This record gives sequence, structure tokens and C-alpha cells, in this order.
Amino acid sequence: MLKAKIEIRLKKGVVDPEGKNIAKALNLLHFKEVKEVKVAKIIEIFLEENDVEKARERAEEMCKKLLANPVINEYSISIEYVHG
Amino acid sequence: MLKAKIEIRLKKGVVDPEGKNIAKALNLLHFKEVKEVKVAKIIEIFLEENDVEKARERAEEMCKKLLANPVINEYSISIEYVHG
Repeated sequence: MLKAKIEIRLKKGVVDPEGKNIAKALNLLHFKEVKEVKVAKIIEIFLEENDVEKARERAEEMCKKLLANPVINEYSISIEYVHG
Repeated sequence: MLKAKIEIRLKKGVVDPEGKNIAKALNLLHFKEVKEVKVAKIIEIFLEENDVEKARERAEEMCKKLLANPVINEYSISIEYVHG
């Protein structure tokens, strides 16, 4: 079994309101050293597939069809072996 | 400047409805090899701080006070140097 770990983040220049709110909250909680916060998402997909290259292709397809919004997101995919 | 990269995930055994919905949607889109999906979050915090150990301690405190819910979340922290 393989696991595709997909990291989806906002493209550079896209406003990150959640990150801004977290930064503000941390500053209010006296974490004054916090300058900026960026939020991203990890989607781990467990695949019944043993071919790493095939898994990467399919994960790429999943990003294009469902997981990432090409207007605002960029993503990276890494493939790992898992037991079971 | 340092960056604290915090990965926040659901504890084992906690239901992940977003992951389940993504898995269902991928299956409907004919990605039949998808067996399970888990969703996690990355929070990157840029800190005006140069001491790695201090940064790690502060990030830990931020998780406890604001970022993670101890009932359902577990988290890991890594600290990196960044330019600027």
C-alpha cells in the first residue's frame, strides 16, 4: 500500500485571511515575536497501489480534478510506503 | 528570522469527516484505489527570534494556548531558518 501526502498551500500573493487572524490572535496573547502566519493543508491518501510512479500520476490527477484550486493553490506530492 | 512549522492532525481514533468526504468524492470520480483519506493542517509561523530552542518552546506554548485542541489534536513542531 502507498500513501500520497499532498501539501496544498496558497500561491504567493494570495491573501491568507486565516493566517492573518491567527497572527492577530497570537499577538493579542502576547506572542509579540510573531510576524506572519501562513496556513496550508495536508491531505494524506492511502492507495491500493504498489507502483510509486503510477501513484504519483494518480495523485496529480486528483489534485487537478478535485483537491486543489488552480487559481489560488499550489501543491506538492510525496509518495511513501505504508504497512497494511 | 526563524519559521516554526507546526503540523496539527487529528488523534488516532478521532473521526475525520472531511477526510471521509474527500475519499467518497474521489471514489465517485473513479479513483477506486483510494482506501482512506486523512486531513491535517500546517501552520507556519514566522518569528522574530534567532534562538532555535526558544522558538520551539514558544511554538509549543502557542499550540497549547491557541492552535491545537488537546482533546482531538496532536501536533509536531519543526524549526527552520529563513532569510529576511
